[in-house]
Amino acid sequence: MDTAIAPGGILHGMATITRVRAIRTRADGTWVIVKIETNQPGLYGIGSASDHYRAGVVVAAINEVLAPKLVGRDTADIEDIWQSTLTSGYWRQDSVMGTVIAGADMALWDILGKEAGLPVYRLLGGRCRAAVPVYAHAAGNTIEELIADVQHYIDDGWVYIRCQLGAYGGGGFLEPASPGEGGRPRASALRAPFDTTKRGAFDDEAYLQNVPEMFGALRQHFGYGPKFTHDVHEHLRPHQAVALAQALEPHRLFFVEDILPPEHVAYYRHIKQVCTTPQAMGELFINSAEYLPLIQERLIDYMRIRVSKAGGITPARKIANLCEFYGVHTAWQEGGDNDPVNQLAAYHLDLASWNFGIQEENHFTDGELAVFPGHAVTERGYMYGNEAPGLGVDIDETAAANLFDATRAAQPRFMAEDRRADGSLVRP
Amino acid sequence: MDTAIAPGGILHGMATITRVRAIRTRADGTWVIVKIETNQPGLYGIGSASDHYRAGVVVAAINEVLAPKLVGRDTADIEDIWQSTLTSGYWRQDSVMGTVIAGADMALWDILGKEAGLPVYRLLGGRCRAAVPVYAHAAGNTIEELIADVQHYIDDGWVYIRCQLGAYGGGGFLEPASPGEGGRPRASALRAPFDTTKRGAFDDEAYLQNVPEMFGALRQHFGYGPKFTHDVHEHLRPHQAVALAQALEPHRLFFVEDILPPEHVAYYRHIKQVCTTPQAMGELFINSAEYLPLIQERLIDYMRIRVSKAGGITPARKIANLCEFYGVHTAWQEGGDNDPVNQLAAYHLDLASWNFGIQEENHFTDGELAVFPGHAVTERGYMYGNEAPGLGVDIDETAAANLFDATRAAQPRFMAEDRRADGSLVRP
Amino acid sequence: MDTAIAPGGILHGMATITRVRAIRTRADGTWVIVKIETNQPGLYGIGSASDHYRAGVVVAAINEVLAPKLVGRDTADIEDIWQSTLTSGYWRQDSVMGTVIAGADMALWDILGKEAGLPVYRLLGGRCRAAVPVYAHAAGNTIEELIADVQHYIDDGWVYIRCQLGAYGGGGFLEPASPGEGGRPRASALRAPFDTTKRGAFDDEAYLQNVPEMFGALRQHFGYGPKFTHDVHEHLRPHQAVALAQALEPHRLFFVEDILPPEHVAYYRHIKQVCTTPQAMGELFINSAEYLPLIQERLIDYMRIRVSKAGGITPARKIANLCEFYGVHTAWQEGGDNDPVNQLAAYHLDLASWNFGIQEENHFTDGELAVFPGHAVTERGYMYGNEAPGLGVDIDETAAANLFDATRAAQPRFMAEDRRADGSLVRP
Amino acid sequence: MDTAIAPGGILHGMATITRVRAIRTRADGTWVIVKIETNQPGLYGIGSASDHYRAGVVVAAINEVLAPKLVGRDTADIEDIWQSTLTSGYWRQDSVMGTVIAGADMALWDILGKEAGLPVYRLLGGRCRAAVPVYAHAAGNTIEELIADVQHYIDDGWVYIRCQLGAYGGGGFLEPASPGEGGRPRASALRAPFDTTKRGAFDDEAYLQNVPEMFGALRQHFGYGPKFTHDVHEHLRPHQAVALAQALEPHRLFFVEDILPPEHVAYYRHIKQVCTTPQAMGELFINSAEYLPLIQERLIDYMRIRVSKAGGITPARKIANLCEFYGVHTAWQEGGDNDPVNQLAAYHLDLASWNFGIQEENHFTDGELAVFPGHAVTERGYMYGNEAPGLGVDIDETAAANLFDATRAAQPRFMAEDRRADGSLVRP
Repeated sequence: MDTAIAPGGILHGMATITRVRAIRTRADGTWVIVKIETNQPGLYGIGSASDHYRAGVVVAAINEVLAPKLVGRDTADIEDIWQSTLTSGYWRQDSVMGTVIAGADMALWDILGKEAGLPVYRLLGGRCRAAVPVYAHAAGNTIEELIADVQHYIDDGWVYIRCQLGAYGGGGFLEPASPGEGGRPRASALRAPFDTTKRGAFDDEAYLQNVPEMFGALRQHFGYGPKFTHDVHEHLRPHQAVALAQALEPHRLFFVEDILPPEHVAYYRHIKQVCTTPQAMGELFINSAEYLPLIQERLIDYMRIRVSKAGGITPARKIANLCEFYGVHTAWQEGGDNDPVNQLAAYHLDLASWNFGIQEENHFTDGELAVFPGHAVTERGYMYGNEAPGLGVDIDETAAANLFDATRAAQPRFMAEDRRADGSLVRP
Repeated sequence: MDTAIAPGGILHGMATITRVRAIRTRADGTWVIVKIETNQPGLYGIGSASDHYRAGVVVAAINEVLAPKLVGRDTADIEDIWQSTLTSGYWRQDSVMGTVIAGADMALWDILGKEAGLPVYRLLGGRCRAAVPVYAHAAGNTIEELIADVQHYIDDGWVYIRCQLGAYGGGGFLEPASPGEGGRPRASALRAPFDTTKRGAFDDEAYLQNVPEMFGALRQHFGYGPKFTHDVHEHLRPHQAVALAQALEPHRLFFVEDILPPEHVAYYRHIKQVCTTPQAMGELFINSAEYLPLIQERLIDYMRIRVSKAGGITPARKIANLCEFYGVHTAWQEGGDNDPVNQLAAYHLDLASWNFGIQEENHFTDGELAVFPGHAVTERGYMYGNEAPGLGVDIDETAAANLFDATRAAQPRFMAEDRRADGSLVRP
Repeated sequence: MDTAIAPGGILHGMATITRVRAIRTRADGTWVIVKIETNQPGLYGIGSASDHYRAGVVVAAINEVLAPKLVGRDTADIEDIWQSTLTSGYWRQDSVMGTVIAGADMALWDILGKEAGLPVYRLLGGRCRAAVPVYAHAAGNTIEELIADVQHYIDDGWVYIRCQLGAYGGGGFLEPASPGEGGRPRASALRAPFDTTKRGAFDDEAYLQNVPEMFGALRQHFGYGPKFTHDVHEHLRPHQAVALAQALEPHRLFFVEDILPPEHVAYYRHIKQVCTTPQAMGELFINSAEYLPLIQERLIDYMRIRVSKAGGITPARKIANLCEFYGVHTAWQEGGDNDPVNQLAAYHLDLASWNFGIQEENHFTDGELAVFPGHAVTERGYMYGNEAPGLGVDIDETAAANLFDATRAAQPRFMAEDRRADGSLVRP
Repeated sequence: MDTAIAPGGILHGMATITRVRAIRTRADGTWVIVKIETNQPGLYGIGSASDHYRAGVVVAAINEVLAPKLVGRDTADIEDIWQSTLTSGYWRQDSVMGTVIAGADMALWDILGKEAGLPVYRLLGGRCRAAVPVYAHAAGNTIEELIADVQHYIDDGWVYIRCQLGAYGGGGFLEPASPGEGGRPRASALRAPFDTTKRGAFDDEAYLQNVPEMFGALRQHFGYGPKFTHDVHEHLRPHQAVALAQALEPHRLFFVEDILPPEHVAYYRHIKQVCTTPQAMGELFINSAEYLPLIQERLIDYMRIRVSKAGGITPARKIANLCEFYGVHTAWQEGGDNDPVNQLAAYHLDLASWNFGIQEENHFTDGELAVFPGHAVTERGYMYGNEAPGLGVDIDETAAANLFDATRAAQPRFMAEDRRADGSLVRP
């Protein structure tokens, strides 16, 4: 790598960004990988800018905003690039643009690691742990199915297991019924999307009944050894969320996540007044105005912002540092939507963060993993990266293109739209 | 409707208020309907200014204050009329005047809807739900009677049911006894109205004992499917209210209402510190100084201000919006006193408010409903309005006059005056 | 007076209320005096229930609500009557009903004093001061006129003088101008009441400029000896009120009153952060939710609630007591609207309250005073009552009737409706 | 419009969304207009989704997300469409998506107004003022130039004038100098973009010196009649912002805007502790977590969120209502970037909001205005819309296409990137 030190001066890496590209993959096209190429032969980096619902918008932003902003800059100026890109369109703290910037940021850390010949976690201060514990996703439509799924993970050596029951995880859906029967509006009042009779209506009280029962059954079956979590997906009215947190207390969860929507995080104060159920939140956050008060008041116990939605490794490391001051641990969001690059970005942060808590497992097919040589490996509840320089993962562009199904990618994708019995929307 | 657009200029709907009248109806004369007439043939609106205890005062205020203030103004200036009438007598946030202004405000929205050819809820942003769930009023002097009444509603498809036991609902009344016996002052000390021997004395501790027992019996009989509420009617000392809220927690009420009087809402902080029983309050509020701190601190979960006591649709919509920011849901007060016009004003707000929670059922006789063509219909726990322009309800003035009984209307009406065993007043 | 003590029992006065009447007087009919008659020969009391803008509504409430509620009760049960009347119509803290209750409450204290053969202030604990200082109302359309008016009061021995300049006191009105000239909307946009060109538009910035200048001129002329106050009449936007308080600081006012409207008293926190200008407020308050937080946080220095709007002597004494705990002084509102009975009710409280601060002067004609034998006398800045039992004032009903002009009384009365240059309402 | 009332049933307007299109115009392609077409002949609406820096991203989001989400829905369900679109991609409170949703929301209100035959402001409650005052943008590279520009506006009848000096308005830029001279890093340390020698370096202290001097000169020349504002563009370190607010106090600005960046609004507490300079902020806000605490604590005096960045008329009205409870006034952001549709959306809110304060002027060429028949007209400091149904503005698609310059539109656009003398970025 060609660098030069001016005598007595400031040294700069000589790698200059020459090209910024979006590579769209996964069969449904929801994975967007940013690839930054440089004027140094063979030196490039990749980062994750995936958005399950708006991949095309992300790609447009990479091409229209990110590429012209970055081309010509030194790859070394990671912090300055982050700051100046963030505010380059005036508005910031944006879900779409935050993801785009994250793609670039991860790619620049990847490049830096390659320049240094070191894995990224070493640039972040080195490892605090041998490997990264991850939590599994167990689910079932009945308690029996759920117990079987949990058992499967336990048999495989997992300790941390998220437990979900039925549709969207909480068992809070009433059986579909004829309109006008049993607490449903009559047929003449129903027009899509207000008709809840086909899919079942969400009911806060049913959820509040079912989830503690579910954990009662799980604890009866498995005892208190396994570390269970639960994800509420922001489905409850705030006061119901407080009640659920309290009702879950006897079952000693590792944490409950997203019990409140981001608009109503002030209710964590009520939760902390009445119970000790550990709280995890953050996967919807994109703005420090959302999480700074929560951390500062120590109202959540695990910070779950997605590394790419935070804006990449640069801001995620700062958030982890902030959390350390307040006794909050990290639990970067992963799950079904994320890609192997984002997973590894989180992995490097996990290794180097003293106050790391847990990470979420991902679900990749073999075909998907084949696109990402060097991807992380998860075994018996632990995730392992590799020691290659940078993030340690590459993208096979041919495989990526082969995996991509343009027809599927062109389909619009929206969050499931749950509704209460009267037809009103349940805000996720 | 006569309108014209001046080229490049400002111009307004030409409907001008020509007359403002109070129409008093219901057999006991407690319903007061404001009718606003305009200079446009056939264009008028109606609104509710009913006050069960002070109908004559309301009528005087309509004649002395409202009519001269409004006649001559454009019907279109709804917000300005509201603001300028509110402060026209210097003092504001007044139960009597708030109701009077509400009558005008509803009538102006009714007129606007007619001018637009659209039901009011569409002017408010359109519907968020198929129909409006309402909660029933079940009661009994014994648990058996109460269970039978609840069963009746469940059989009819209702889900939300308020459960009250005995006099004024809470079962907190001691048996009438001879003065001087069992914790009562001796006869020589008793003078009306301090004599509690005829009606029974209210006892906070008895109430605190009875209500959780009642819900224990109801939950044992019905399980956790039905959504129960309870109304305390502000009968408890504040610390007893905190204790009751906690004692009710295992019975998972949909909400408890008016557990505190408006003078002592600061005790909601204590309630929220110790339990998760959902709190509904507001039917006594008339002043933002009463509810703004409660909403802002998220101390109540359901805002129950009566639309007419809030001052009409204009302020009620603002309150609903305020609540949305804080995760509070609306549960506009209805019940026995209100009239079909106020019921529909609430209905239109319910349809259009994303953060609507529930509405209270009303009790009208067929004869009363006949006065109000277009009135809402409640079936199996849901209320339905119609799609006619405006509020969708009219008043048949002949029927209104026939229903009205001047002799009954002339009787004074006061809240029941409950007293403790020592004769002291229980503030409702 | 016929009383009897049952051996070992509780003693009650034998006076029973037989009649409650409203007497309306002043030429414009805005004074409403409640007269309570008893079954004891010659024993009656009077109280003030005046409301400048809604006298007819008050009269209706006395006849419909107050009279049937009180007739038959012992005059001795002052506290119980107050509490049970307050909540007799469910909603309370009402401007109209509060005034009505106050009329009864003052009359009952008047009766009690007569029964005791003592002036009311002695029943309240006796006098803490020899006489009651009051503040004068000086005004002028120019500084010169104002200086002359102030000089007149100083020459007459007054020390406390409220100083107001021009329309509504603050000099914040722009000169009337042609529409479309100098920051006014063009003619085609104007329709009453949005047309401000006839009366002049209110301008916060002009007010903020004029009032400190006015006090600069007054202090230059009179020095710091006279104690000046100023009344803002709630005309400013909250942030302008904060700025005015600060700008007035160098002029060392005795207090500034109503710098904020009741809806925005939270801004007193800002005022107290930036300056020491003493703050008086309360004449618009009717509800403890409005004033309790202000007193508790020590955000106002003088509590100015009108005794009749507070609900009479019973609650006003409690408010004075509350204020004593927090170092707040009383300055009961009087001024142009009030009647000699309310003035004396305040006087008795003033004498007996250790933490009394100042009272506002009234303006009565000789003809008006002739209606109220025993009225207070104000000389050289001090008010003096008399030592007759009760309030010390009576009403000459014949004179009251003669003063009353039915035609004038029938005219509607509204607060002046000031508007800004764009036509929008200035909330008083 | 085809409607029908089912007897006793619910029924809706029959207008269904058939097509959602993005129309890109202005020569530089930065204006994006959403057009919603319906199944009713001739019934459509338009809304603003312009983003000066990311127009192409917005267009991608309209095509990929908005159109498939909306087609097939009733135009009447404005609130439900807003709520369900907001959360349709899980992450929300997004600058890009908020703008896109706003475009749809305005178009639906436009359609509703057309269905009603009424201008939108009447659906919002009618007008509270005759016309909408706007503030002008005066600027100069020297005080003399600035005074001349201000005089020009005053001569034209304007009252509210924003005053800016030099580059980016504040005069805080040091003269360009040779690197290594006068507090600049030496040449060997400079690399673009760290080189500040070409454009001049931003210096907080210079800004802090210059702006109060500027207003001193303006006040000396013009006195306190004109209402001046100033825009800091978030250029200062937080503590310097506090110092500037205090230094500006003697000059009595109408408000200072964006004195703090959105990341550091907590410093408004410091500002309010030390001075009374009115504060305006909001044009960068997209998330209630940013503005709810500010409003609730009354830390800003004017809320300047852009209607389209708030998400349209539906949320902007709620924000205005929220502000009314807290004594905060609205000053929707306009300025150079916005289009005539967004300007009119703000105008309708202005007319109907009692707590409206001021609006910012826009700058359109005749050619740009020709694209928007019915556009607002600004004269002598007041803006006037028209009385046509809906927003009152249309888009001439042919003119829009002719105005659009594809070559210019393809150029990337970024905020000016100011830096301090050491080369570090000044966050806007």
